[in-house]
Amino acid sequence: MINPNTTAAMTAAIGKCAAAAASNGTIITAVSPSMGPASIESHYDEALAVPGLLAEIADAEEEGSADGYVIACFGDPGLDAARELASGPVVGIAEAAMRTAAYLGRGFSVVTTLDRTRGRAEDLAAHYGLARFCRGVRACEIGVLSLEEPGARDAVLAECRRAVAEDGSDAVVLGCAGMADLCKEFTAELGVPVVDGVAAATRTVETLVSLGLRTGDRGEFARPPAKPYTGLLRDFQVR
Amino acid sequence: MINPNTTAAMTAAIGKCAAAAASNGTIITAVSPSMGPASIESHYDEALAVPGLLAEIADAEEEGSADGYVIACFGDPGLDAARELASGPVVGIAEAAMRTAAYLGRGFSVVTTLDRTRGRAEDLAAHYGLARFCRGVRACEIGVLSLEEPGARDAVLAECRRAVAEDGSDAVVLGCAGMADLCKEFTAELGVPVVDGVAAATRTVETLVSLGLRTGDRGEFARPPAKPYTGLLRDFQVR
Amino acid sequence: MINPNTTAAMTAAIGKCAAAAASNGTIITAVSPSMGPASIESHYDEALAVPGLLAEIADAEEEGSADGYVIACFGDPGLDAARELASGPVVGIAEAAMRTAAYLGRGFSVVTTLDRTRGRAEDLAAHYGLARFCRGVRACEIGVLSLEEPGARDAVLAECRRAVAEDGSDAVVLGCAGMADLCKEFTAELGVPVVDGVAAATRTVETLVSLGLRTGDRGEFARPPAKPYTGLLRDFQVR
Amino acid sequence: MINPNTTAAMTAAIGKCAAAAASNGTIITAVSPSMGPASIESHYDEALAVPGLLAEIADAEEEGSADGYVIACFGDPGLDAARELASGPVVGIAEAAMRTAAYLGRGFSVVTTLDRTRGRAEDLAAHYGLARFCRGVRACEIGVLSLEEPGARDAVLAECRRAVAEDGSDAVVLGCAGMADLCKEFTAELGVPVVDGVAAATRTVETLVSLGLRTGDRGEFARPPAKPYTGLLRDFQVR
Amino acid sequence: MINPNTTAAMTAAIGKCAAAAASNGTIITAVSPSMGPASIESHYDEALAVPGLLAEIADAEEEGSADGYVIACFGDPGLDAARELASGPVVGIAEAAMRTAAYLGRGFSVVTTLDRTRGRAEDLAAHYGLARFCRGVRACEIGVLSLEEPGARDAVLAECRRAVAEDGSDAVVLGCAGMADLCKEFTAELGVPVVDGVAAATRTVETLVSLGLRTGDRGEFARPPAKPYTGLLRDFQVR
Amino acid sequence: MINPNTTAAMTAAIGKCAAAAASNGTIITAVSPSMGPASIESHYDEALAVPGLLAEIADAEEEGSADGYVIACFGDPGLDAARELASGPVVGIAEAAMRTAAYLGRGFSVVTTLDRTRGRAEDLAAHYGLARFCRGVRACEIGVLSLEEPGARDAVLAECRRAVAEDGSDAVVLGCAGMADLCKEFTAELGVPVVDGVAAATRTVETLVSLGLRTGDRGEFARPPAKPYTGLLRDFQVR
Repeated sequence: MINPNTTAAMTAAIGKCAAAAASNGTIITAVSPSMGPASIESHYDEALAVPGLLAEIADAEEEGSADGYVIACFGDPGLDAARELASGPVVGIAEAAMRTAAYLGRGFSVVTTLDRTRGRAEDLAAHYGLARFCRGVRACEIGVLSLEEPGARDAVLAECRRAVAEDGSDAVVLGCAGMADLCKEFTAELGVPVVDGVAAATRTVETLVSLGLRTGDRGEFARPPAKPYTGLLRDFQVR
Repeated sequence: MINPNTTAAMTAAIGKCAAAAASNGTIITAVSPSMGPASIESHYDEALAVPGLLAEIADAEEEGSADGYVIACFGDPGLDAARELASGPVVGIAEAAMRTAAYLGRGFSVVTTLDRTRGRAEDLAAHYGLARFCRGVRACEIGVLSLEEPGARDAVLAECRRAVAEDGSDAVVLGCAGMADLCKEFTAELGVPVVDGVAAATRTVETLVSLGLRTGDRGEFARPPAKPYTGLLRDFQVR
Repeated sequence: MINPNTTAAMTAAIGKCAAAAASNGTIITAVSPSMGPASIESHYDEALAVPGLLAEIADAEEEGSADGYVIACFGDPGLDAARELASGPVVGIAEAAMRTAAYLGRGFSVVTTLDRTRGRAEDLAAHYGLARFCRGVRACEIGVLSLEEPGARDAVLAECRRAVAEDGSDAVVLGCAGMADLCKEFTAELGVPVVDGVAAATRTVETLVSLGLRTGDRGEFARPPAKPYTGLLRDFQVR
Repeated sequence: MINPNTTAAMTAAIGKCAAAAASNGTIITAVSPSMGPASIESHYDEALAVPGLLAEIADAEEEGSADGYVIACFGDPGLDAARELASGPVVGIAEAAMRTAAYLGRGFSVVTTLDRTRGRAEDLAAHYGLARFCRGVRACEIGVLSLEEPGARDAVLAECRRAVAEDGSDAVVLGCAGMADLCKEFTAELGVPVVDGVAAATRTVETLVSLGLRTGDRGEFARPPAKPYTGLLRDFQVR
Repeated sequence: MINPNTTAAMTAAIGKCAAAAASNGTIITAVSPSMGPASIESHYDEALAVPGLLAEIADAEEEGSADGYVIACFGDPGLDAARELASGPVVGIAEAAMRTAAYLGRGFSVVTTLDRTRGRAEDLAAHYGLARFCRGVRACEIGVLSLEEPGARDAVLAECRRAVAEDGSDAVVLGCAGMADLCKEFTAELGVPVVDGVAAATRTVETLVSLGLRTGDRGEFARPPAKPYTGLLRDFQVR
Repeated sequence: MINPNTTAAMTAAIGKCAAAAASNGTIITAVSPSMGPASIESHYDEALAVPGLLAEIADAEEEGSADGYVIACFGDPGLDAARELASGPVVGIAEAAMRTAAYLGRGFSVVTTLDRTRGRAEDLAAHYGLARFCRGVRACEIGVLSLEEPGARDAVLAECRRAVAEDGSDAVVLGCAGMADLCKEFTAELGVPVVDGVAAATRTVETLVSLGLRTGDRGEFARPPAKPYTGLLRDFQVR
């Protein structure tokens, strides 16, 4: 589990949710990059998070310590690059949450943090072919690192209720890794299925690994060509 | 696992493949309807398979014997109706195979049985939002019940090879439950990931059940209204 | 005219509307299946209506008694299967109503019965390529068999008025065969064209027959392969 | 029937085909504009044909001599403008041919005259929502007024054969009003349904008229606002 | 700059806005046709404006007096025909305004004149591939020739404000050449970028000319075939 | 002009092409990041190029030295993030090339470097709404830094010829900043318009600046929220 931001408390919480979702026998390692933004709330943050995220994958690949990877940020930053780099499968939490929710009915709503991040979620829904299923992307205007503050839970829940009432959705997708711990309770309170991408992606990677499936590597997603990478804080040379 | 056709040998083979894919602790029950076609190779066959398939789900619901269901025919017959009827999640093998393959790169090809069934696979890819990912649907012109005959395996493999070479696909999806046993070997021989819907759907239902997710039942997929069903071989009354 | 539910009064009403719409010289025969649901208000009902519907077509084919067929339920159940089976053209009333309405302006609204059936109408609009034209699918929350009850007519009309006022539609499509008799009056009262699928499909089949057009039968819609159909109430063997 | 070009022989042939397709009791009047191009083989020709076409409709409206109109050129020139002007329904032959062919299977191919007109047919297919159904637009590189020359018929037929063999289409649509007389024979020779837009549009207008349907006139397609039209050869003022 | 309507005052205003937007050294010639409608507010008006517009291009081509053309009406009338006729590039103001606005964020709203013209703007957005970017087309219900009347400016501005507030758009596109002079002020007052098609198209034609780019002329947009054009007020023969 | 790779020779060449395309009075400054890959030929390269690219924009913003920016790599890396950061407009060369080519006819083909980069170009075409216009993305299998080697020019030209012959395109788009210098000659040799994104984007930024247009900054593209960015080689804090 790679939390692409550098906030350790959030990484720990993600790891805990992933472990709760995982099958017996699966070992979850939650990490965050040594470089990057404290939270991801803009295209800019997302772009700056990616090199650190790729460094974590490169390290794990060198160590052979991971069978597969989850990118635990709802913008799925660096997903295509990660798929080139990793020998095992890589799954983003937006991708997994939205594909999983598509099994649950005609459509879902996404409830996310800041309004400015809604566009990215809409782009991803379109890119994954889920525009028809995604009936609304809603923001509760709470920053990623404020999700643990008093009142935040209620504000997210209230937006989820509006989604159910107004969008005609069969399910709700939580649009931030920092909301993972709310999933079970919200399902009970809302009366509709609520999908957390951290749990969904954890199980999806397990499934791909258990079925022997990984990114096809004979074309676009072959290992990147070796070349000089200069001036970066660490050695990004692909070997 | 519901094999919607009435051919017991195929049901047994599907059950075996599902069991091989399942996690420890998951109990697989493979059934086929007591009424319907021996194989599904047309819209007509598909339509006639659905009532028997729904009867199996109704029986399991009454017994409380299943946490979730797989519809093990690549046309995903009766999927929407089954979702209304079942209290747990229902997944079709075309749906699961195609959604799973979408995690593996830019696109996949489907290799199916008879040419006349290609249209249905194209419809499903569009309906699931995967038209962009599905780069080709190819037929090897071998009937469902002939897949075990000498030469069939080679013909399917040859079509898979053509798919990889001509469609620029990162993965191959096997377009019939009767091909499930070919998956592992083909992956090795083709050098690209090969996705079998029986295995993919088995793991997907496990995931949904383990995450407490089931079809949203507050709108379109609520239990069907009770009403008279006359003249049918068995009682289809919803209770 | 095949009314796919088993309610004889509705079959008679449909036959009457079809006859009123037909050209001189066209003989309308309205039938309903001997097996199936009393009304179609769910995916489940629709699935259970199809075998009986196909049996009616099979009988008519054996007798040579029909030049073409209308499936008179707004979900167009079994349409693809019927096209395989029939030697003449087959038209669904949703298909005919929506395609006909597309000649009348930029867009139309569908007004249907129960809210839970709206998803099916949206799927059909998309499948027929009419998503751009279909500017709204609205329900009046009256069951199919309650359309003749006091107050029902006014509720449907009120929903049609809302459609015209709020959706910016040039025409209204009546979303149930049971509404066929309302068409003429509603046109006068609403001041916009109102399309009834029973009438539209009747004329469309006439057109296809008169022009010598029927379903192309050299690929997907060829006659289904002969095979055992076991356990069904009647013999579904294709000959 | 308005043949938007000024070639009288073609107008007569179109009128004959329309009359052959029409129901008993329908009176077909075939006209061509007094101004415009001799044939329509470019966007330029199409643009210059429209004023004359609209003049014909204006005259017929003033005389009250037509219940509905067919625009008998496969580019459907001036269709939206004609719908504003006419009190009865207006149907283009491309529109009618393609919508009619959509009832006959999964897809059709269009066989048209000059290669340069293929783009217009593709635009229309997309505009009418039929991009999925239109599996190919093919040209035989014969000009509109050369369709009666020796060899033309064989060249068109050959292209139709290629369409059936290569596009996987269930039907062929003839992409020029000047091909209308080939329809019956080609159906027999090709073994797939062949759709002529002149006949299809004739029957479609009949259907709309008989069902009391005409273009919705409360918004975009209301009668154009009265205003000065200067310098035109005739008076185009809307009254 | 071709103003396709015959109102000279509007032509002069368009010429002035174009000149203000143009680079040093660019010579702007604003013309209007000698025949056609006084304003364009319907499909009918648009159709009748096209021959005069093409005549202007034909004259300029004969004189060799223009390197490129702008069609200065937001319906982009006759654009495809003009591209066939002109040796230099041709750009419509709706096309240029919408493509330019797409550089400015996720989406834009169009604010246009009469409600009945909204459909044309929606068609163009779809045709240009900008349906995702065009988040709303709004009308202020002021006729083209009334835009200079007292109160008109405020009404347009009010609709722009609603577009920003309700559509979540990053930019506003002015949907009529007659609004060109409002652009600068509105940008200041609204706090979002406002795009005027007259200016955008002027700069776009400059760009194309300076880069040596013009319409590809080897297929659909080759010069129209020579043929008789009869009965038209002027000689439209292509040479 | 930001060349997002670190190869100075390529930056110089890009600057030269941009200057040749620019209007009188425009000052072109071509820079490359101090960190990142030597060339961009994978999603991985693209991801690692973005922080350096953003650093260049941040520096220019601090100095107030640029009115607008071009991202001179055909993958348009970091475009959304750059739009958040920059006070003036930002244009990618793929975006500008493809939007410019859309003015030139029905469709264009992209000719790019390595086959593995084709997917990115397809994604961008879809994201920009140009899927219908982009009739083919072709690779000549020559690396970015090998474009100056003997034989490279001929190989690119040969692929362009195949694009014109096989894709039915009206124009060719050069799919790499390193091909910018080939544009003029290829136009002459191919006989169809050839679009270079470096030139197109240069002129597009000029247009936006001259019209006073910049990215809407009231929602998604507002300046990123201030927050800690740790462990990165330079200070990425937004102020």
